[in-house]
Amino acid sequence: MQTGVPLNEAHNFQVRKLEISDKSKGFVELLQQLTVCDAISDENFEARFQELRSLGDDHVICVIEDTTCGKIIATGSVFIEKKFVRNCGKAGHIEDVVVDRDSRGMQLGKKVLSFLADHAQSVGCYKVILDCSNENKAFYEKCGFKQKEIQMVKYFI
Amino acid sequence: MQTGVPLNEAHNFQVRKLEISDKSKGFVELLQQLTVCDAISDENFEARFQELRSLGDDHVICVIEDTTCGKIIATGSVFIEKKFVRNCGKAGHIEDVVVDRDSRGMQLGKKVLSFLADHAQSVGCYKVILDCSNENKAFYEKCGFKQKEIQMVKYFI
Repeated sequence: MQTGVPLNEAHNFQVRKLEISDKSKGFVELLQQLTVCDAISDENFEARFQELRSLGDDHVICVIEDTTCGKIIATGSVFIEKKFVRNCGKAGHIEDVVVDRDSRGMQLGKKVLSFLADHAQSVGCYKVILDCSNENKAFYEKCGFKQKEIQMVKYFI
Repeated sequence: MQTGVPLNEAHNFQVRKLEISDKSKGFVELLQQLTVCDAISDENFEARFQELRSLGDDHVICVIEDTTCGKIIATGSVFIEKKFVRNCGKAGHIEDVVVDRDSRGMQLGKKVLSFLADHAQSVGCYKVILDCSNENKAFYEKCGFKQKEIQMVKYFI
C-alpha cells in the first residue's frame, strides 16, 4: 500500500564490503536468486571468504544491508585483472550483481555498481566490464555503461 | 607462393606458458596488434610478470613460439575467478587472445584457446568465458563456445 513515505526513507541502507557474518543475514539466499547456488556450509563459506579476502583490493564484494531488518538485499563483486596491454594496465570485472526481488525499484543496483566501479577506478583500472542479458542492458546504460562486444561461454559441467 | 609443403610442417610450434625471456621474442609487439600497448621497459615487464606468476594457476598466459625463428606468434591469457555461486565454484576468464597477422590460418588461435580452456577445466572451473567482436564469433564457435550475453563497458580514461 502506498503510504506517501518515499521508499528509501522507510529503510536504512548500509553499502559496504562483505563481512563473514553476512552469511547469517541472507547473503547466500540472495545469490540463489541469481543462479545455481546450493546451501553452503559454514566451513566452505569461511574458506572461500578468507581466500577472497587474501586478495585484498583485487577482489571486492559489495553488499547492501537493510539495517532495519538485518538483511542483505543487494550484492555484486569486482575483481581486478592485471594485464600487459594498456601499458601494464588493470581491468575491473564486475560479476554476480543481484538485488533482492522484494527490494527492487530503490536504485540499489545502481548503488552496488557505483561502489564497484569506484573501487576499480580507485585502484587504477582503465576500464570496468561486465556481461549481462539484453533485457538488463538499459539498466547498465543508466549506470554509465555502453555495449561493446558479445560474451561467449563454454561450460564444462 | 604455394610450395606444396603444408604450412604446419614448415614451422616448429611450441605451445607453452609465457616466460620472462619472451619479451625479447616479440611478445609485446604481438600484443600491440591487439590493442593499445606502448613499449614496456624491462623493469615494468618483469614486475608485472612476477606479479602474475605469484598468482600461480589462477593466472596463466599461453604463448606459441615459432622455434624456427624464435618468435612469439600467438598468445592468450586466462584467470580464475573464485565465486560463492555455483557452490563456491570457479570461472575462467579468457582475455587478450591474438595471433600474429602473418601467422593466421594455421589454427594457432584454436591451439591457444584449447590450452587456456584445458587449464581452466583442470583447476576445476565450471565454465570459461570471453568477450569478442561479432566478427570473431564464428571463430570461437569453432572452438566450442556459444554466445550467451552481451558485454558492457565503462572506461575511466
